[in-house]
Amino acid sequence: MNVICWTDLIGTGVFAISGTLAALHKQKVHDILTLFIFAFVTATGGGTLRDVVIHAYPVAWISDANYLIVIITVVVIAIACRRWWLGILRRPLLVFDTLGIGIFTILGLEKALILGVNALAAILLGIVSALFGGVIRDTLANEVPLVFERQLYATPCLTGAIVYVLALRRGR
Amino acid sequence: MNVICWTDLIGTGVFAISGTLAALHKQKVHDILTLFIFAFVTATGGGTLRDVVIHAYPVAWISDANYLIVIITVVVIAIACRRWWLGILRRPLLVFDTLGIGIFTILGLEKALILGVNALAAILLGIVSALFGGVIRDTLANEVPLVFERQLYATPCLTGAIVYVLALRRGR
Amino acid sequence: MNVICWTDLIGTGVFAISGTLAALHKQKVHDILTLFIFAFVTATGGGTLRDVVIHAYPVAWISDANYLIVIITVVVIAIACRRWWLGILRRPLLVFDTLGIGIFTILGLEKALILGVNALAAILLGIVSALFGGVIRDTLANEVPLVFERQLYATPCLTGAIVYVLALRRGR
Repeated sequence: MNVICWTDLIGTGVFAISGTLAALHKQKVHDILTLFIFAFVTATGGGTLRDVVIHAYPVAWISDANYLIVIITVVVIAIACRRWWLGILRRPLLVFDTLGIGIFTILGLEKALILGVNALAAILLGIVSALFGGVIRDTLANEVPLVFERQLYATPCLTGAIVYVLALRRGR
Repeated sequence: MNVICWTDLIGTGVFAISGTLAALHKQKVHDILTLFIFAFVTATGGGTLRDVVIHAYPVAWISDANYLIVIITVVVIAIACRRWWLGILRRPLLVFDTLGIGIFTILGLEKALILGVNALAAILLGIVSALFGGVIRDTLANEVPLVFERQLYATPCLTGAIVYVLALRRGR
Repeated sequence: MNVICWTDLIGTGVFAISGTLAALHKQKVHDILTLFIFAFVTATGGGTLRDVVIHAYPVAWISDANYLIVIITVVVIAIACRRWWLGILRRPLLVFDTLGIGIFTILGLEKALILGVNALAAILLGIVSALFGGVIRDTLANEVPLVFERQLYATPCLTGAIVYVLALRRGR
């Protein structure tokens, strides 16, 4: 397994943590499967959307069981140590979340560029893969997606993607 | 037409009934097309999502017009005998709904296994095809999906899928 | 570029305008990327859904950068002349929106028919491509989709699609 795979799995884990925290905090979760669905949707929603739109089959979490194993592990830990989980992870999560968004934007952008998508659409697809897991999670919880309410996420994500594409072009 | 096709069409009809009941009960429906969209989304949403993600084209309701005919028939009956429909079907529906979820979980799981998806992802895809029609329906109606609020649905669905896969393995 | 392409781009522009107006009016938008996502989702959501379901790859806005350029132009104008945009465009927009729905229904229907989809499913796909951009936009804004609340949109759209298919058959 190469560096990109590891980065991708780490991003998946971080987003799964974010999904369990969101679900537990909103107290809209009553059983383990629901908690798992929130973690799963947050971690894989954006990337799956991207892969389906650019026809990059098979989708990562289907061809490689490690993605689901990471998500299940996160959910089991979250259930087993619920109080500790909510107490300890609240603060650093914002850091992890932002890190996860950064990682997924670049990975998504690169995947699209490799498949021959033009730069404009690739930037958009990078952003979609980074942000739409959270967007789907919040929509399922019947809330306005966090990303639309906080300047924190979206603009840095866009800026990073544009800088990355310009740097790539310059480097060639 | 074989047994699987018939089971699938029956499941589609049951979920279409569930969709019309949900839409009529919420009084968010003002015309026949909206009622049809709710029935259609409930009946086909989960399976379509599964087929797109595992690249099982053509999607069932596109290659076989019988699915849409079943859904249209349900909607026409629901409009024609609205009062009777809401009165008579409320109670037994929960039974039908649970039955539909059971049928779709197994059908979805099998379809994924046939296409070579690993057991873990196949279980998840069975659950997605059974539950996400209702999840999309409730999300469009701007409500927290029923499935996340009731223990009734999700856990038995997960248990059944796992037992089925284990039994399959044992049987080989 | 032929007439269909131009019609498609005009429809995209009209729906992008509709998306920016909805987002600005709801005051749920705080930065330029969010505004862009609302415009983008409204303009491309329905068509992307249709293309993915009927396996019509590559999706239009990925293979042709003009779609994204039209949407970005609309968003930049909307930000630059925000007050004027909200004041002038409110009224005529309903006209444009209805026009856009008409255009997209026919284009979506034709694309499905060309790909060999049966008439019933093609009518449905025409409607999905015309209405689901707005449906996704409203769902992300955590509101019941406008199209389900107003008789204005859905039924004329359905009637038009059916008449069109009947006329096509007669014409052969």
